[in-house]
Amino acid sequence: MNARPVIAIHGGAGTILRSAMNTETEAGYHAALADILRAGERILADGGSALDAVTEAVRLLEDCPLFNAGHGAVFTAAGTHELDASVMDGATLEAGAISCVTRVKNPVLAARRVLDVSDHVMFTGAGAEAFAEAQGLEFVEPSYFYTEARYQQWLKARGTSGTMLDHDAMTKFAVENDPIDPDRKFGTVGAVALDANGHLAAATSTGGITNKQAGRVGDAPLIGAGCYANDATCAVSTTGTGEMFIRMLAAYDVSAQMEYRGVSLEEASSDVVMEKLPRIEGRGGLVAVDAKGNVVLPFNTEGMYRGFARVGDAPVTAIYR
Amino acid sequence: MNARPVIAIHGGAGTILRSAMNTETEAGYHAALADILRAGERILADGGSALDAVTEAVRLLEDCPLFNAGHGAVFTAAGTHELDASVMDGATLEAGAISCVTRVKNPVLAARRVLDVSDHVMFTGAGAEAFAEAQGLEFVEPSYFYTEARYQQWLKARGTSGTMLDHDAMTKFAVENDPIDPDRKFGTVGAVALDANGHLAAATSTGGITNKQAGRVGDAPLIGAGCYANDATCAVSTTGTGEMFIRMLAAYDVSAQMEYRGVSLEEASSDVVMEKLPRIEGRGGLVAVDAKGNVVLPFNTEGMYRGFARVGDAPVTAIYR
Repeated sequence: MNARPVIAIHGGAGTILRSAMNTETEAGYHAALADILRAGERILADGGSALDAVTEAVRLLEDCPLFNAGHGAVFTAAGTHELDASVMDGATLEAGAISCVTRVKNPVLAARRVLDVSDHVMFTGAGAEAFAEAQGLEFVEPSYFYTEARYQQWLKARGTSGTMLDHDAMTKFAVENDPIDPDRKFGTVGAVALDANGHLAAATSTGGITNKQAGRVGDAPLIGAGCYANDATCAVSTTGTGEMFIRMLAAYDVSAQMEYRGVSLEEASSDVVMEKLPRIEGRGGLVAVDAKGNVVLPFNTEGMYRGFARVGDAPVTAIYR
Repeated sequence: MNARPVIAIHGGAGTILRSAMNTETEAGYHAALADILRAGERILADGGSALDAVTEAVRLLEDCPLFNAGHGAVFTAAGTHELDASVMDGATLEAGAISCVTRVKNPVLAARRVLDVSDHVMFTGAGAEAFAEAQGLEFVEPSYFYTEARYQQWLKARGTSGTMLDHDAMTKFAVENDPIDPDRKFGTVGAVALDANGHLAAATSTGGITNKQAGRVGDAPLIGAGCYANDATCAVSTTGTGEMFIRMLAAYDVSAQMEYRGVSLEEASSDVVMEKLPRIEGRGGLVAVDAKGNVVLPFNTEGMYRGFARVGDAPVTAIYR
């Protein structure tokens, strides 16, 4: 008998600023996470695929202004938005990814179309937009991605030295209360799921980092770094200092350790997040699920917006350790 | 005592058309490979780093019109050239990559600058060009990448149904003799090296596939797919049907199998190239070296332009099985 279907999501990781805690803000994050988990859970309960569940969960995370992906994405140094997304199907090892799109409303849907209809795995920039347009995906004006909080964050970041390593400078710059230190919060969203047929899938999406140099690609659209799924092992979506996750192949490494070392999902993901990433100063976390329905949500920062929901159970959400 | 320094390179893989063999053409490829190997060997003999040796070897492969990277790159469906490259340092696990640049003379030098000076790992498109320009790298007119052979190949490809899965349609379209079937030759170049200090490095570069959709990103610029290096295990550069190499994390998988299964470089690379890739119809090969100086050059096609040179020995080059 297959394990009970389950979905897990994340909305970024970082360091808690205890001084900035705010019950109302916190409740907003919990509610948003729970709503999105319920939507994914419903798909799984109806016999939908893990691939459909993660795509829909990430689409909703993109639409939610609280998270750094889609609407609510951060600004680049050029004052624009550049969005990346990826998705992988553990049943077939098929994958789709796009990077540096600026007008596609839901980057994860473009990544999903790449997976579904293209012989290719990844498109970038204008070519990615041309693909999305040919596929009839919804386009928006760049202003759609604008949110006042991100704009204020960007204005402040421009005045500081260097890039802000995060999607959300609200606390630091007093734009809005947020309990996570903006310098140490990493703005990616993602989802992993196990469906009733025992199939796994993962999806990840991001707006990158505030005031980033144009054209910078993080781990989110890179298969094996920010996203990986394989029915034989696990499905993984990561969030953190993208460059270190790329160099460590963080998502695939969890799978490789399970396959080649024969360790559990928990042991493999703990090794990646708590041992290997810190060795190169990699900060962040991941959500992952295996074919037995085990779910892990490890992170080496003080907080990570996260949650999971098993079909039939109420969603569980958390922010801090 | 450290192993003797060694460098290995490749210039694409494919299926031999025995009917199209031509001694003169073949000799040209051998001579080009040997010259480039000698240049890399010289750097290693002088105590240079593996990182410098692979960067220089790939720069020379880019400059050589015989190979699909830099000068001699294939045309996209739009009649343009889009170039990708990556490099990784096994000593530090630092990496640099760029994709979809159109005016940078040597993409591998841009990838190397990303590794050397940027906090980021990957840049794409106009942002990648802006980075390269700020770094003072040499820019060329798009016409620099033009070669008559590639142009004729593109004209012919446009008349056929679909993308040509390769960089070199010379034989099929009788532009020039070439012993490798254009439908099954995969145009990437790459190098791996071990230096006198026991450090490993890898670099990969490509012009993609003839008549490809604009914006398509293959495995060449993706760390872990087309390029990987780790002093603890091995350095790998791949060439083949890029999408399958991405889905398999082909380059990193060799390292992961060595690290987690404890198998040799030969066993790990053979498993990836001869077992795992064929399961998803992945065609191509790789060159790899480990810290003991073992070199492997496996491929599952009928041919791969390849060679290696140990310091103090004459280069060994090969095309067919």
